[in-house]
Formats: sequence, C-alpha cells, structure tokens
Amino acid sequence: MEKVQYNEYLQEVTDILPGGVFLTVKSGEELNTMTIGWGTIGFIWGKPIFMVAVRDSRHTYELIENSEEFTVSIPFNGAMKEELKYCGSHSGRDCNKFEDCDLTTVKGQMVSTPVIKGCKLFYECRIKFRQVMDAKNLVEEIDLKWYPEKDYHTLYFGEILSCYIDEEVD
Amino acid sequence: MEKVQYNEYLQEVTDILPGGVFLTVKSGEELNTMTIGWGTIGFIWGKPIFMVAVRDSRHTYELIENSEEFTVSIPFNGAMKEELKYCGSHSGRDCNKFEDCDLTTVKGQMVSTPVIKGCKLFYECRIKFRQVMDAKNLVEEIDLKWYPEKDYHTLYFGEILSCYIDEEVD
Repeated sequence: MEKVQYNEYLQEVTDILPGGVFLTVKSGEELNTMTIGWGTIGFIWGKPIFMVAVRDSRHTYELIENSEEFTVSIPFNGAMKEELKYCGSHSGRDCNKFEDCDLTTVKGQMVSTPVIKGCKLFYECRIKFRQVMDAKNLVEEIDLKWYPEKDYHTLYFGEILSCYIDEEVD
Repeated sequence: MEKVQYNEYLQEVTDILPGGVFLTVKSGEELNTMTIGWGTIGFIWGKPIFMVAVRDSRHTYELIENSEEFTVSIPFNGAMKEELKYCGSHSGRDCNKFEDCDLTTVKGQMVSTPVIKGCKLFYECRIKFRQVMDAKNLVEEIDLKWYPEKDYHTLYFGEILSCYIDEEVD
C-alpha cells in the first residue's frame, strides 16, 4: 500500500461513488460492509473529512452507532461490480457478505476496521460528529423521492486518518 | 465563463479551501460575502452537493437563513489574499465589504446570488437541506477547540447547479 494525499484522487472518487463503493464498519467482533453511492469529502474543524450517510433501517447503522470508525474502499475501473451489487442488495443481518462474495479484508493501518482487498483506494476514518437528518429542514422534493419510508440518514463525519492506494491493483 | 464538471477541480478546491474562499449570500436586496475555510463536496440524493458551514453569530447566517441559495468563488494561485483577509475579519453588519475591498460581482447564471470577479472557479448552489449542529454528537476535543462560545455551525447542503471557470483569470 502506498500513502497518498486525501484529496489526490477526488475527481476519480466522485466519478466512481454514484456507482458504488464499500463502507465497512466494525463493532466489537461484528464486521459488515455495505455499498454506498453517496458521500462528501472536504475539510472541516481543521481536518480532512469524509462524510458518509447511513439509513437507520440498515444493519450497518446498528454497528456504526456503536463504533467510532469506518473505512471506505473504492474499486477503480469498474472492478468488483458483482460484489458491490450483492453488498448493496443484501443485509448483513441475514448473511455473511464476506463469505458469500469471497471478500478478503486487509487490516486497517490506523483503525481496527479493515478495508476490502481488490479495491484501489482506501480511506480510514474516525468519527468526529454524527447527526440524524431532521426532515423539517429538508426540501419536500427530496423528502418525497428518497424518504417515503421516513428512514432518514444519519450523517457521519469521519476524520480521514489515512488514505492509500494498492499499487498492485489497476 | 467556461462550464466545467463540478468535480473537475476538486483537488485544487480542497488544497485552496483551508486558506480561504468566498461564500456569497443574498437575501432580498441585501448581499454579503464572507471568507470560509471549511466545506465538503460530493454526491448525495442523486445530486452533486457543496456543503458549507456558517456559525449562527455571523451576519451571513442572518442572510442565508432567509435564502435558498449561495455561491462559492475560489481564487487560484494565491490571488485576492487581502480581500479574503478583510472579508474574514470584518462583519457585513458594520461595513460594506464590496465597497471596502472594491469587489466586483458577476451575475449568477442559475441563481440570483452573484459570484466574485477575480476568482478562477465558481459554484452556484441551491440549498436542499440545512441543519444546526447538535453538540451532543460532537466529540469533546472539537467542541472545546472550535466552539468555546457555543456558536455552532449550521450546515447547508447546496445542490451544485452550475460550476464554471473564468478563462481570463490565472
């Protein structure tokens, strides 16, 4: 793994993100990964920040609410399409995604949560602020389109502690 | 002005941001600009999003709370250092920053809020979600360091409607 600046690949990250990347969360001995297509990156509180959003209906929500960390693993060049599809359409409550998709994890460098092998770019983050979305401040068009079940996202602002690429992956 | 993808200059934006960029807000006939050093950019609700943060003690807060829009104007190559310094250390309550700094505005393309001439890159945004930070979900180290006065930021998530560069500016 080769260390890179947190913002060195932001154009690639934001191009790839809507198509799916892996959000991995660990709580105690329980580990889960899910496919996310939304997030923002930037600089707040004097720190580089990766903000991810998790609906309270998700299994990942139960884990991340009891954790201070997450990792984001980003496949480049259309890699891992099948795995992303599976991890975005199955719940860790009902299956073990790592076994089902034959995913290999790589130990985190700065956090106890691993990253997903086969991806190109990795972010290790420690949560500094979290807040459930309050629908009263959301425009109606988005509320109706994305939250018909009222399962609002909680926003997790993670300080990026480490960002690196796997130089052996395309 | 030349239209660009919202994420084409993200590395430059995040490199420049901590040193200061202009956040411009208009409410009715009242216009103000302030220097911000924090923000994130990415993709949420199927839309490109620029998130900015404004403390409730700011004059800009009074305006943005009565507005649905903002613009971000980003000077490249160390331009407009003096103007950024002035606009970050004076309040629009007490002075007219545009007159004092001899700032020229350029009409927005998609919003009624203008951008600041002399900058290189511009974002025009419409606010889709806003939320005041709830300190109970903030880690203590950040609370103590950045909010001794308890003047928490409100986070404004703006859909990026237009992103463009001034090809006549370095």
